[in-house]
Amino acid sequence: MQCEKLFSTRAKALKSSVIREILKVTANPQVISFAGGLPAPESFPVAQMKAAFDYVLNNDPQSALQYSTTDGYAPLREWVANRMSTNGATITPDQVIIVSGSQQALDLIAKVFIDPNDKVLVETPTYLGALQAFSMFDPAYVSVDSDEHGLIPEALTAEVTKDAKFLYALPNFQNPTGRMMSEERRQTLVEKAREHDLLVVEDDPYGALWYEAAPPASLLSRMPERVIHMGSFSKVLAPGLRLGYLIAPIEITKKFEQAKQATDLHTSTIAQRVVYEVVKDGFLDEHIPSIRERYKNQAHAMLDALTAYMPKGVTWNQPAGGMFLWVTLPEGMDSEKMLDKVFAHNVAYVPGTPFYANEAQTNTLRLAFVTVPPAKIQEGVKKLGEVFSAG
Amino acid sequence: MQCEKLFSTRAKALKSSVIREILKVTANPQVISFAGGLPAPESFPVAQMKAAFDYVLNNDPQSALQYSTTDGYAPLREWVANRMSTNGATITPDQVIIVSGSQQALDLIAKVFIDPNDKVLVETPTYLGALQAFSMFDPAYVSVDSDEHGLIPEALTAEVTKDAKFLYALPNFQNPTGRMMSEERRQTLVEKAREHDLLVVEDDPYGALWYEAAPPASLLSRMPERVIHMGSFSKVLAPGLRLGYLIAPIEITKKFEQAKQATDLHTSTIAQRVVYEVVKDGFLDEHIPSIRERYKNQAHAMLDALTAYMPKGVTWNQPAGGMFLWVTLPEGMDSEKMLDKVFAHNVAYVPGTPFYANEAQTNTLRLAFVTVPPAKIQEGVKKLGEVFSAG
Repeated sequence: MQCEKLFSTRAKALKSSVIREILKVTANPQVISFAGGLPAPESFPVAQMKAAFDYVLNNDPQSALQYSTTDGYAPLREWVANRMSTNGATITPDQVIIVSGSQQALDLIAKVFIDPNDKVLVETPTYLGALQAFSMFDPAYVSVDSDEHGLIPEALTAEVTKDAKFLYALPNFQNPTGRMMSEERRQTLVEKAREHDLLVVEDDPYGALWYEAAPPASLLSRMPERVIHMGSFSKVLAPGLRLGYLIAPIEITKKFEQAKQATDLHTSTIAQRVVYEVVKDGFLDEHIPSIRERYKNQAHAMLDALTAYMPKGVTWNQPAGGMFLWVTLPEGMDSEKMLDKVFAHNVAYVPGTPFYANEAQTNTLRLAFVTVPPAKIQEGVKKLGEVFSAG
Repeated sequence: MQCEKLFSTRAKALKSSVIREILKVTANPQVISFAGGLPAPESFPVAQMKAAFDYVLNNDPQSALQYSTTDGYAPLREWVANRMSTNGATITPDQVIIVSGSQQALDLIAKVFIDPNDKVLVETPTYLGALQAFSMFDPAYVSVDSDEHGLIPEALTAEVTKDAKFLYALPNFQNPTGRMMSEERRQTLVEKAREHDLLVVEDDPYGALWYEAAPPASLLSRMPERVIHMGSFSKVLAPGLRLGYLIAPIEITKKFEQAKQATDLHTSTIAQRVVYEVVKDGFLDEHIPSIRERYKNQAHAMLDALTAYMPKGVTWNQPAGGMFLWVTLPEGMDSEKMLDKVFAHNVAYVPGTPFYANEAQTNTLRLAFVTVPPAKIQEGVKKLGEVFSAG
């Protein structure tokens, strides 16, 4: 039968993205890929995971394999609430809902807040996965001015924030740029949000992955009454479990719970039980420093290679944490149009364009550095330098 | 801050359901609950699950804990395609996408097909979870005439099917009624679907759980070109993993994949790997007969108790498989209004009303019989009989 005519307007608008094409190329093991958003698999705590699966399946297998509540495993929600009660803020377990990875958090936020043409404020550029999730519900994006230090809070004027459903922000080592929002900007952002009665979504998958110093206090801890905070176990434990959480004012958490029930009933019972077993006695505080050390070394390897091999006119930032950095090519060069040449040299990156909600800066690109060994980073960046030098 | 004004129209329409109130009551272990939709935890193959988790975490832990593709683990998709190639139909792996439980399948179907006010055809009554998922996208439901043998295909007239996005049907041991669609009706349904160019969603979580004889061939096998088939591991292995699948014409599966990427990136890698290890060598064919036997005995216990204790004027069906049966009280009795009296006797059921997309038959109710031991079934049904006799 002819299916196309039956598709919803949102489904018709779904297009195969450039990312999908890149993934096909990077499936070739000869390709040095700076395109992935994957954490380093060597960082996964396999022994602890195994022990936790054993424990749960030996001690309470029938409950761990049964349906469970939509809001999530109570001890894990309590653990999240305690851990996120920082900087003088108190988070209660009933503000927490466990989700099937951060991407589901974005879907639930979209479901609960976005009607067609609703104004949604985003950074410039912003996380592609958020644009994909939100766009299913047809918002009108407003890209807020941003620079190498992240979102510029002074750009949150009365006009820009008027009737906005929320601002979506990634203050720590943002995907795609790796940039971090300063203490001063966070303070100003809080002032502006209060002044204009703005709800802020704080997406924070990378905050624990700092290199030299922890980032400034979260937006959640500064104004829990108007922040929806997204957290994830994907980058500090392992992403294959699909486990994250949302923290919000209780009224909003209750709506998330209702929306989640209609979306997937609940998140994997056994995944929640196992992660709770892994984290409950403080394991993350032992484990995360090793990830920080690993990623810091990887970042330095890439920064060194960029300094060594990039032609004049190419610039990049110095991330203070996370998995990514952001490269700007000379004006007039288009990073997406250069992909064929880059692929021909068996290297890959993600061009900047898909990360912009509105007008794109087409001479930008994202480099991920955590899954490629330092020697390969050098080799790959050298090849990129050659391609960019040829123009 | 005042959040209510920020909620989307769909979020504002979300209400706490009667089910939620019932769940609070049934959390009390003194209550004999016929309200649950849970499979019997004694049926979970714990030893096989443990062995599979061990195998995967010993042999390929880093891949099992890493991100994976949106469409799902290729060997599992191939296994599903082979298993579902029955009755002369050939299903290919690229028609299969793995989902995070059947509820997510419903969410993806809604996303890909439903624009506001789109016509969606459903059985009378139908699965509440489907109504919850679809309603997030604001369809106009048309309840198709149904009786104790399920949907009446002759009711699928040109007028009823005109501009319908799809028909949602549960041919095998439907939730909530337990009824099964006959061979003859399936044949007629296929004729009507072809005649009116109708897309059919076949939801089949219970088909393997027959008591005496397998149900007639699936709708998928009869017209794979116009069926979206939903399958689940929740009732034949364990629901806590959240694992199911969608089978559709390739053009539709590709849209599901794009929608799923925006919804949760992918389903738990390790859950897919583990379930594949459990099922790949034919375990389900050894395991499912024991569930059938268990549920058949439970069904008989409930049917015997109903015969013994229900007052005159109360009727019910004889399910040939699955987990539920459907009770009709005398005209004028309202099963929802009687809940307080029922709770006071420490018994619970789900009233019929929430299962109707349009006008409800308020004197109906669903009884689930698979998690209550036979002696307790007798005790609970006896109490129900007393409440219904008192009127």
